[in-house]
Amino acid sequence: MKTVNLGVIGYGYWGPNLVRNFFAANDCNVKAVADGRPERLAVLAKIFPSVKGVKDADDIINDTEIDAVVIATSVFSHFPLAKKALMSGKHVLIEKPMTASVAEADELIELAAKKGLTLMVDHTFLYTGAVQKMKEIIDSKVIGTPQYFDSSRINLGLFQPDVNVIWDLAPHDLSILTYLVKEAPVSINATGISHTQNGIENIAYMTVNYDSDFIAHFNVSWTSPVKVRQTLIGGDVKMIVYNDLEPSEKIRVYDTGFKHKTEEDKTKIMVDYRTGDVYIPKLSTQEALLGVANDFVQCIIHRQTPKANGCLGRQVVKILEASQVSIKNNGKEVCIR
Amino acid sequence: MKTVNLGVIGYGYWGPNLVRNFFAANDCNVKAVADGRPERLAVLAKIFPSVKGVKDADDIINDTEIDAVVIATSVFSHFPLAKKALMSGKHVLIEKPMTASVAEADELIELAAKKGLTLMVDHTFLYTGAVQKMKEIIDSKVIGTPQYFDSSRINLGLFQPDVNVIWDLAPHDLSILTYLVKEAPVSINATGISHTQNGIENIAYMTVNYDSDFIAHFNVSWTSPVKVRQTLIGGDVKMIVYNDLEPSEKIRVYDTGFKHKTEEDKTKIMVDYRTGDVYIPKLSTQEALLGVANDFVQCIIHRQTPKANGCLGRQVVKILEASQVSIKNNGKEVCIR
Amino acid sequence: MKTVNLGVIGYGYWGPNLVRNFFAANDCNVKAVADGRPERLAVLAKIFPSVKGVKDADDIINDTEIDAVVIATSVFSHFPLAKKALMSGKHVLIEKPMTASVAEADELIELAAKKGLTLMVDHTFLYTGAVQKMKEIIDSKVIGTPQYFDSSRINLGLFQPDVNVIWDLAPHDLSILTYLVKEAPVSINATGISHTQNGIENIAYMTVNYDSDFIAHFNVSWTSPVKVRQTLIGGDVKMIVYNDLEPSEKIRVYDTGFKHKTEEDKTKIMVDYRTGDVYIPKLSTQEALLGVANDFVQCIIHRQTPKANGCLGRQVVKILEASQVSIKNNGKEVCIR
Amino acid sequence: MKTVNLGVIGYGYWGPNLVRNFFAANDCNVKAVADGRPERLAVLAKIFPSVKGVKDADDIINDTEIDAVVIATSVFSHFPLAKKALMSGKHVLIEKPMTASVAEADELIELAAKKGLTLMVDHTFLYTGAVQKMKEIIDSKVIGTPQYFDSSRINLGLFQPDVNVIWDLAPHDLSILTYLVKEAPVSINATGISHTQNGIENIAYMTVNYDSDFIAHFNVSWTSPVKVRQTLIGGDVKMIVYNDLEPSEKIRVYDTGFKHKTEEDKTKIMVDYRTGDVYIPKLSTQEALLGVANDFVQCIIHRQTPKANGCLGRQVVKILEASQVSIKNNGKEVCIR
Repeated sequence: MKTVNLGVIGYGYWGPNLVRNFFAANDCNVKAVADGRPERLAVLAKIFPSVKGVKDADDIINDTEIDAVVIATSVFSHFPLAKKALMSGKHVLIEKPMTASVAEADELIELAAKKGLTLMVDHTFLYTGAVQKMKEIIDSKVIGTPQYFDSSRINLGLFQPDVNVIWDLAPHDLSILTYLVKEAPVSINATGISHTQNGIENIAYMTVNYDSDFIAHFNVSWTSPVKVRQTLIGGDVKMIVYNDLEPSEKIRVYDTGFKHKTEEDKTKIMVDYRTGDVYIPKLSTQEALLGVANDFVQCIIHRQTPKANGCLGRQVVKILEASQVSIKNNGKEVCIR
Repeated sequence: MKTVNLGVIGYGYWGPNLVRNFFAANDCNVKAVADGRPERLAVLAKIFPSVKGVKDADDIINDTEIDAVVIATSVFSHFPLAKKALMSGKHVLIEKPMTASVAEADELIELAAKKGLTLMVDHTFLYTGAVQKMKEIIDSKVIGTPQYFDSSRINLGLFQPDVNVIWDLAPHDLSILTYLVKEAPVSINATGISHTQNGIENIAYMTVNYDSDFIAHFNVSWTSPVKVRQTLIGGDVKMIVYNDLEPSEKIRVYDTGFKHKTEEDKTKIMVDYRTGDVYIPKLSTQEALLGVANDFVQCIIHRQTPKANGCLGRQVVKILEASQVSIKNNGKEVCIR
Repeated sequence: MKTVNLGVIGYGYWGPNLVRNFFAANDCNVKAVADGRPERLAVLAKIFPSVKGVKDADDIINDTEIDAVVIATSVFSHFPLAKKALMSGKHVLIEKPMTASVAEADELIELAAKKGLTLMVDHTFLYTGAVQKMKEIIDSKVIGTPQYFDSSRINLGLFQPDVNVIWDLAPHDLSILTYLVKEAPVSINATGISHTQNGIENIAYMTVNYDSDFIAHFNVSWTSPVKVRQTLIGGDVKMIVYNDLEPSEKIRVYDTGFKHKTEEDKTKIMVDYRTGDVYIPKLSTQEALLGVANDFVQCIIHRQTPKANGCLGRQVVKILEASQVSIKNNGKEVCIR
Repeated sequence: MKTVNLGVIGYGYWGPNLVRNFFAANDCNVKAVADGRPERLAVLAKIFPSVKGVKDADDIINDTEIDAVVIATSVFSHFPLAKKALMSGKHVLIEKPMTASVAEADELIELAAKKGLTLMVDHTFLYTGAVQKMKEIIDSKVIGTPQYFDSSRINLGLFQPDVNVIWDLAPHDLSILTYLVKEAPVSINATGISHTQNGIENIAYMTVNYDSDFIAHFNVSWTSPVKVRQTLIGGDVKMIVYNDLEPSEKIRVYDTGFKHKTEEDKTKIMVDYRTGDVYIPKLSTQEALLGVANDFVQCIIHRQTPKANGCLGRQVVKILEASQVSIKNNGKEVCIR
């Protein structure tokens, strides 16, 4: 394949960004967009007159000229649409979170493998300059052994009517965690509260546990008066602060660490501290979604595995699913081994 | 009583601050300080030559000229020293946390009541301009009904050899929570990790649950490269951000809230948002520890109950104790009703 | 006139923003855009296929169906183009700065008056929520008598080949000053330095003097490693800090002031301080350039005077012109009375 | 000399800090402190009972057991006291600014040279970790050729009754400039305003000009609602931001620069930009005033020249003096070559 012909299903808030970036991507044509709402197709026609607007997703899934499908609908429709598209021989990119359950994710992964098709999830953050730089820093062992990942993603946000704040906000941070840290988590604890009558949590806290002494924690809220987008990633040699609200200085690397001493005396403090310089690396400013588009298209053409592949997407869903069980059981540890 | 004669047991890091502020307090004499370490008594002699230094706590507890005792030793000795002092008829101010267990706190409270003595805990933060202002704002119903309390107290801190990071750092925030929010918590979930061989947690997370839809969460760490001292307190009408690192603008009141609508349609979003102005009140800059000293002395003289009384101190210990049980049981909910 | 037919001359960096906002404005049609560069007309055709692209400005100026012209070319062509357009009976909106000299500005103002045409300058900042709020605060006497205006606009910016950093960056702040403060300045001092061989200053400082004890100062630079966009506006009762880099909290009003005492004793300090609360008003988030477009169109239709009228634009040019004289005379005071 | 016996003249706000640090310095005894105000001597007696308090400066100047004198009185008495002390054979450390005029400074420098005595000025900032680190960075040519120095030191400060805001606040920044940049300035422009009836400027701006294309600018104010302590130091290779309000990250080095190209075309932009990483070096946290005390004592003992020597102090006074002439002549350039 030299050029990928693309169809997009769902043209909501994120749709125009997807179309614009697939326009800018190499080796790719956006042929059609499906959305049941006439007013959304009107918006499409105004901005992208060359793209065909259709009402029905099936018009894209059954279009033999289309090679690949982007599914940008609400989470509960991801699975049926992606399954149909894969069955129909299309490569598939799904908005995050990938599916509403691990079982659904497993079925899609298996189907894509069997058909030899690319299956990818739009975990856009993996393609930012900040996450790419952190990946480079962590893989090169600069921070030593990772010890913790502590993320806050809070602001006055839109209450979602169908999924709680973990499903809405945590996929970003869970995809980053999964991408940066190789060790697989073994269990989840989550707590939260709903301030609405529908019982959907608008504030939640989640701890992700590991066999080693690594720990991850997530604080998500739709009801904070201030916006915070910060993650601390600590190693025993250096520590990273990732503040996504900084316009250019998003990543700081602290030459700070501690080592526990050989245990001579239980009553003495067991660690040596060290603090040193701070380093703020320059980051690539390429639009992340263009990176997503290019990765999807090139992986289709060269039969490679994208960064944000189905397995990574499934891992995120696994943690989300477990968090729901834990939160409904008052924070009980839920095994995901 | 017109003037309170005071003895201080323990002259470590906090000792000089205590003595200096009791010097500055009204109606009060600092008569003696006890510390087993000769070098600490030498420091005392240099700065406060008028105060008698003694080696043994009993020399203070048994001194008939002394009316009140400040216990500023390590947490495990709080109970035996305070009990002895109360038995000996002394009013008692204990460093935070009050005791190592609720049982100990109960015994001290009962003893003080029986003897008619003042029992107080040095929860210094309650006497800051920031906490006093928040108390005033919350009590006047300006923020509406409190909905959440979300606190982070993290930095590169000294690893304690005998207590974990919750016992070390959370008492500040738990005392503020207990002081500001009248509802009693019903259960605790806590998770954490130790990066040293002694198994003492250096990172921990705690959720405090209530019968109403109020929730409190605490993030404490000795291993963050950046220092954070921030608490969000949300009401349905307004929200407070308390950033203790701001030199003068510690409290911000956001005219921000949300109301859930009457439930017409389960599938629609259930809330109305509102954002408005922000207000940064001017705060009293009086040293908080002087407020502690004056409250202790005046409550002794006028037989009143201090802000940071034994019951408040006990409530803090109750949550700390439950957090330890939860953390050792992998985050299991621990009832404290 | 019910609807204004509009032509835009110059389709550079700012051109698409202008066209987009005139599209969004009421009672207005964008009919044609002129630019000598074919590649810019190609960009136009792609985004706004309904707008006619022409090579020559005269095709717009002489188009009898066009009522009003927007001139978005480089500063030295503002005057000849605007003059031609006014002569041709068109209403005119000019990019800032209005002209390259006061003499040019005077001629345009006179011509527009004679012809009964609207003459306006695109000082976009006047239409921001922040400046509108400051106008409201200052006009209502909340800050008392204004005493100073201190502005910094520095970053690593594009060196301009034809105008210095004052002509490039200060028009924003000078338009705000002129809009907010009614008193007319009487003289200018400016200093600066060029780090390139063309002698064009890339760093400059300017003081604007008044008959009263009001003072204004401007710090502009293309060579700062950090971006600063901050203005302090002090009154004797309250003071405003305007930080344009804050995403939402751009304006802070400090309840801070000082009063000089009646002069009893020359050797004593002569002022009483006062510091109080801080207040962060909520600002309108409407796009400022849409405000420009609507003001221009409505002033044409209703024969009113726009906020950013020719006289305001001329005042900005007057200060710019004087700064150039001062800077070339080593900071000498230049009278502009 | 093995140990320096020291007397301090003037025990105001800064006095206790001076005495405390000379106590902590090596090879030094604080023998006596003179202050005409009995209440200040009472404060001394309480904190430093071993130091003799005297009413009259002459009791120190004429004390044959005293080797060195610290003069911490108001600026107008610096010269007569320092002259007397030098005449009497004492080494002298003077509070900043050194004297009220260059003529006075010249006389003291000459006298000290003739007598072979150490003459030093308490420009404390030179001894901070931040300034020492900047000195190291600039001397090692890391930032390339220095191009500008841009300093803001503004806050709501105490109005001084006898000196204007430049004399009060700028000596800090002028001492740093003089210490870091070897080139001598050639002229000064200053503007300012007084909001009190005594005509003493409370806001002022100063440009310091050089023969090369280096420039320095100072913004000082007692009437800013916010506190700013920031200096930008730009080189053609890197740039430094020094924010003294940051608790630990005071110095940032930006790998940012620009080079002007060989001049091919006057109409083209003449520079190449470069932006890169940012680096925040760890700084020494030793108290700066202890560095002052040690430098003074050791230079006396080893007959060396202190960092903050008389010539540096004189250069600061020279700029201050010229600023006063300029400000009274409406910003006219004042030559100091």
